[in-house]
Amino acid sequence: MDDQQPTITGFDSSDLGSTAILPGIPASVSPAALTNPKADLAAMAELERHLFAHRYARIGMECYGGTIDPEAATADRGEALSILAEEDQALLCSPETGALLERLSSASAVLSPIEAAQVRILKRDRADLVDVPPEVQSSMLKLITESDDVWRRAKAKGDWATFEPYLDRVVDKIREVAGYRNPGADPYDVMLNEQEHDTNRAFYDRFFAQLKDVVVPLLADVRASKRKFARSPFEGRFDVSRQWELARDLVRLEGLDESKVFLTSTEHPFSDGLTSNYAVIAAHVKENDVISNVYTMLHEGGHALYEMGVDPALDRTSLKGGTSMGMHEAQSRFFENYVGRSQAFAPRLIEVMARQFKGQLGRVTPNQLYAAVNRVEAQPIRTEADELTYPLHVMVRYEIEQLLVDGEATAKDVPGLWAKLYHDYLGINVPNDARGALQDTHWASGLIGYFPTYALGSAIGAQLKAAMVREGMDFDAVCASGDLTPIHSWLRSRIWRYGRSRDTNELMLDACGEPFSPVYFTNYLTEKFSSIYGL
Amino acid sequence: MDDQQPTITGFDSSDLGSTAILPGIPASVSPAALTNPKADLAAMAELERHLFAHRYARIGMECYGGTIDPEAATADRGEALSILAEEDQALLCSPETGALLERLSSASAVLSPIEAAQVRILKRDRADLVDVPPEVQSSMLKLITESDDVWRRAKAKGDWATFEPYLDRVVDKIREVAGYRNPGADPYDVMLNEQEHDTNRAFYDRFFAQLKDVVVPLLADVRASKRKFARSPFEGRFDVSRQWELARDLVRLEGLDESKVFLTSTEHPFSDGLTSNYAVIAAHVKENDVISNVYTMLHEGGHALYEMGVDPALDRTSLKGGTSMGMHEAQSRFFENYVGRSQAFAPRLIEVMARQFKGQLGRVTPNQLYAAVNRVEAQPIRTEADELTYPLHVMVRYEIEQLLVDGEATAKDVPGLWAKLYHDYLGINVPNDARGALQDTHWASGLIGYFPTYALGSAIGAQLKAAMVREGMDFDAVCASGDLTPIHSWLRSRIWRYGRSRDTNELMLDACGEPFSPVYFTNYLTEKFSSIYGL
Repeated sequence: MDDQQPTITGFDSSDLGSTAILPGIPASVSPAALTNPKADLAAMAELERHLFAHRYARIGMECYGGTIDPEAATADRGEALSILAEEDQALLCSPETGALLERLSSASAVLSPIEAAQVRILKRDRADLVDVPPEVQSSMLKLITESDDVWRRAKAKGDWATFEPYLDRVVDKIREVAGYRNPGADPYDVMLNEQEHDTNRAFYDRFFAQLKDVVVPLLADVRASKRKFARSPFEGRFDVSRQWELARDLVRLEGLDESKVFLTSTEHPFSDGLTSNYAVIAAHVKENDVISNVYTMLHEGGHALYEMGVDPALDRTSLKGGTSMGMHEAQSRFFENYVGRSQAFAPRLIEVMARQFKGQLGRVTPNQLYAAVNRVEAQPIRTEADELTYPLHVMVRYEIEQLLVDGEATAKDVPGLWAKLYHDYLGINVPNDARGALQDTHWASGLIGYFPTYALGSAIGAQLKAAMVREGMDFDAVCASGDLTPIHSWLRSRIWRYGRSRDTNELMLDACGEPFSPVYFTNYLTEKFSSIYGL
Repeated sequence: MDDQQPTITGFDSSDLGSTAILPGIPASVSPAALTNPKADLAAMAELERHLFAHRYARIGMECYGGTIDPEAATADRGEALSILAEEDQALLCSPETGALLERLSSASAVLSPIEAAQVRILKRDRADLVDVPPEVQSSMLKLITESDDVWRRAKAKGDWATFEPYLDRVVDKIREVAGYRNPGADPYDVMLNEQEHDTNRAFYDRFFAQLKDVVVPLLADVRASKRKFARSPFEGRFDVSRQWELARDLVRLEGLDESKVFLTSTEHPFSDGLTSNYAVIAAHVKENDVISNVYTMLHEGGHALYEMGVDPALDRTSLKGGTSMGMHEAQSRFFENYVGRSQAFAPRLIEVMARQFKGQLGRVTPNQLYAAVNRVEAQPIRTEADELTYPLHVMVRYEIEQLLVDGEATAKDVPGLWAKLYHDYLGINVPNDARGALQDTHWASGLIGYFPTYALGSAIGAQLKAAMVREGMDFDAVCASGDLTPIHSWLRSRIWRYGRSRDTNELMLDACGEPFSPVYFTNYLTEKFSSIYGL
């Protein structure tokens, strides 16, 4: 496991903008243009070219920034990123672009489906930015570049105090931006909606309530069960450079085109895609935790599969990328859990692991792996949680970020809240801030409203898997074969290829024949853990 | 040895541009602005912000492009780079920017020295681009991104035929651009002048004639000498990962701030700087050639020292970077040769090498190292040449590129010309194209007129060293101490800190009290090799 956040949506600076006038978009729109959709399409293509170049530059800078760039360059990179974002905001938010998109909107008859989707997404991206003053947007971007850097050092030292003022500043800034975006609305709803369109606090409250209803009693039953599973076969020290070799092997096992993946290391794993020709996976390897490496790779690989599975025709348009964070996490947690933690896949996985660690893992059985990675255990790290306790980790964050955004708590209160909620939900004591409130990078990166998408993504993934099975796929046989092509094909044809051109709701309806429902996820958890724990 | 080309000048896409109107630069200049230098300075600062963001993005993309990016992403990156360049050309070449720079030029009394230099360099960068049609400039950038990629694969396979059509296309395109830049001028002069201002064919013809007068007879004497030096202590296989450790040690030995350097690997070594906080060194390591690794690092490290030595106040302006390729190569060859191949530095160098390779190099003496790296030997690879034969390798390229630009030869003729000239100048047979005309990346990257700056840089370096000594520096003692700080301080205060704000001629006059003269270089060669070979 170990997460990531493809920076695709989130606080995506390609969604930003000032007042430059783009070559190709006439500064004063002549009335003739109103009846000249061809010229308007050319102008949109010109707009997309510039947005593409900035997006390509920006994603690269963000990916390398968190992995290989010197710390000393953080402020320079932050400045460069915020200027590019300012340019994008200027391009998108100019009155000329507004008029152009309105004209194209009303000329839908002459648009190809891709062009129509471009117009829709560009309008939405524009609407997200048009009321945010460029200097506010820009100061937010500089702040989160700096804050992410401060967080990295604070985590390394387990030093909450250093990070604390940054978290308050980030919350204030994100709230300010939300206020401009949608002045009447609940700021947290605005943030949730940015990560996953058409969601809000009411939606997630219901969703988490449904999860709780199942997870809490199930967890109690599991705890009462006499069955215990060992993780001992995976204890010990696993050579770091061999673990990187294993990471490469997992890229292949997952079915990624290795030649298009740059694999690098970072503090907090993530993945992103520049085009369908180029994905970055930033992972981390811990000498004493080979399991963490494996599930990090499967998770990030899922994100990369989505990014590289987008129709190449969309590469240089605003439709490139995953449609939302929920859908992105659905892909990552699909490969991490529905494939990676399945009994059927365990023989393939242990085979690949034992190839690098013959001495240590050569005699470990698939069932031992399956037991070790599905052992339910309350422990402090979200990214290392089993599938059953995972939603509880998310709920802790969901509650705390609401208190922060609502002004009912400040950063100073967070470690205390963290300790209390981990005790209430998971029954454990938080050992320290590094393994507590500093463990995740999200808030430092301005990603407030992101955490709930992990749980949502898990639930979407369960529903997608159910649809595959309903359509006749022998899911276990596919996993057992080690050739995941049928799963790729299914997801590519229903989800990946559309990029941002379809929203989650539309994709779910088309892929599953019904709207999103958390019941597949709760059923999956009940069935899986009842079986494992003999409930 | 092993070269690089900081992309700083060269075909620098920050020197490009179309028709966008920059935020901050009013589209229609009001007469009031003519008397409002404060507003004009703010507009120039705004222009510089955008150029900085694009330069930061572009240098990063170019550095990562040749090192870690997937081959599949080449076309996407080329497109993104050419769009950013187009934006810069638009920014720089707009009539508004032209008028702004003219006004600031005439208001020199109110400008700080840095602002005055910015105006001068921006005007020059603008003049280089203003007459080049954006579509021509853009097609050139896309072509060289592609051609560089084709070259890399062609070199790996030793396959001239694949690269051949690209070389012709590159020459045509560069000649076309030169024609726009300076319609009346000799296109090769335009190219030479781009790499090193105020140089042309006549200058280099004289320069190379002076070199030949010394090098050719000296080489004949060396060949006639009975002294022979062994390279055997450095033969054998040197573990690649230990060589990368050694590369890191050399970064430190050279006095670079390691925390600001990203060290990576590539086919053809290079170095570049994004700001004074961030340099990239792309090196390569060959298992059977530890010497090549050492001198690659010293060379690229010299470039990085220059880039990181620029006054941080210039970081986000057009004055960032080395002033010319000749001056850049002067720094790289300074640390490669005047420090790195000196007798005084040999004990420090072998000490560092032996730290990683105790078994293999623990008993090698400084004198054995000195002899091995100064052994004069005609061999086919420029970047592995000793200091005496090095200028001859450059002259081969200088002659061939003139024939290409003059239309007296095409790419088809190059391998034949290469064989003939290596035979004439160095008395050797070229073994194959990979170790022949495909060995260097420059032409593939559009860098025609670049090679002569290697020889020029060597000569500038010799003159700088002579000036240090004349001022009382005990150069050998500094090298022997292993602490190169006095050399850094001298170069920083005279050369590095000025970035692009002073041209080579001015820097040389100030640093050495006289204009450039090749006599220090020829004297150095005569003295050094007479002593080594007992002439």
